[in-house]
Amino acid sequence: MSKKLAIIATHGSLDAAYPPLILATSALAMDMEAAIFFTFYGLEILKKGNADKLKVAPIANPAMPMPVPNIIGMLPGMTAMATWMMNNWMKKANVAKLSELLEMAQEMGVRLIGCQMTMDVMGIKKEDLIDGIEIGGAATFLEFASEDAIALSF
Amino acid sequence: MSKKLAIIATHGSLDAAYPPLILATSALAMDMEAAIFFTFYGLEILKKGNADKLKVAPIANPAMPMPVPNIIGMLPGMTAMATWMMNNWMKKANVAKLSELLEMAQEMGVRLIGCQMTMDVMGIKKEDLIDGIEIGGAATFLEFASEDAIALSF
Amino acid sequence: MSKKLAIIATHGSLDAAYPPLILATSALAMDMEAAIFFTFYGLEILKKGNADKLKVAPIANPAMPMPVPNIIGMLPGMTAMATWMMNNWMKKANVAKLSELLEMAQEMGVRLIGCQMTMDVMGIKKEDLIDGIEIGGAATFLEFASEDAIALSF
Repeated sequence: MSKKLAIIATHGSLDAAYPPLILATSALAMDMEAAIFFTFYGLEILKKGNADKLKVAPIANPAMPMPVPNIIGMLPGMTAMATWMMNNWMKKANVAKLSELLEMAQEMGVRLIGCQMTMDVMGIKKEDLIDGIEIGGAATFLEFASEDAIALSF
Repeated sequence: MSKKLAIIATHGSLDAAYPPLILATSALAMDMEAAIFFTFYGLEILKKGNADKLKVAPIANPAMPMPVPNIIGMLPGMTAMATWMMNNWMKKANVAKLSELLEMAQEMGVRLIGCQMTMDVMGIKKEDLIDGIEIGGAATFLEFASEDAIALSF
Repeated sequence: MSKKLAIIATHGSLDAAYPPLILATSALAMDMEAAIFFTFYGLEILKKGNADKLKVAPIANPAMPMPVPNIIGMLPGMTAMATWMMNNWMKKANVAKLSELLEMAQEMGVRLIGCQMTMDVMGIKKEDLIDGIEIGGAATFLEFASEDAIALSF
């Protein structure tokens, strides 16, 4: 039985940020260990005060619950509207906000690892990110993932 | 040797729906077990009568085989055209339709699991989804994936 | 301790091409084996002379480091601009170009596998792809991934 969950988060949209955090906190509740490696756009999730500001793209996703034609979706205001809708659905279903999930993950002991290379590439400093996280690289992730882990990438 | 394939399907576009179903049926043909956990937009694949109606976004993907500028791709009709093209290519290459792959997966014994939380969030009912599937949560997936499995997320 | 890294690359944009190649070369440096299975748009990465021509979509990604409204992002020239910016950031941070990472991966012994089904569907021939790669299917990937591997999909 795997005792670890090793996740890579590469996207920074509202909808893409939920699965890593929900799975990691669920794993801790099942007495597993978990680590999330935030890389590329995924680092947006770790930026101070940013988790609850993440947005949903209303275009290029024909599987949106309420799809709008791309020619409408690209209009100003539509990203805000899609984001408001998704946040509202989450709230109605009693799903925690991303900032709450992040905090819960930290309290439970999920390892949150920011990708050093992405920080170098995008000019992000450690103090731009929330406190209490680690900074690491591909090797940090692979070491954690290489011992009896379920590995997933989002 | 892993005996299980544990897949998370988070996207509901035509192109994103193929890899989970092809890999899962291939695994069964290799005498492995397989489960697919459909969450977020991935639930679109399980909606009754919907598998063959999934679409491809003709924008925001510069790697499309026949790329069109986004300013063209966002025009009405372009999503339908890209979808028609991809379905046509699949057919010419004798690749099964998604509804056929879904049916094959069920007959072979792939576990198809709809995400309870997504159903709550998006107001999807069990009767909206195809028959014979399970409903579960992150724990259902992690339990299956935690014993000697190849885990993948799409 | 896992001795293998098994990756599926399904996307062919500049930003999506980096994680598989960086992780695979990191794995080799850690004395692991690695294989990347390139499928769907991921085959674009393997096309001869194409790795350094991959682009970034400036739309439908609200987590872009310098986000522009979709109505601006879809204008002609914006894809080229976003691509130029990302390539420039990579260069400033001394990150290798994709063609260099591909070459390094081959020299180190990463198995690069093109998806036969995708080639059939999209009419891609073996001679369209870089030399020294394998052609295979879902079974090829699953066999490699099924023995003590970290599996990831991008």
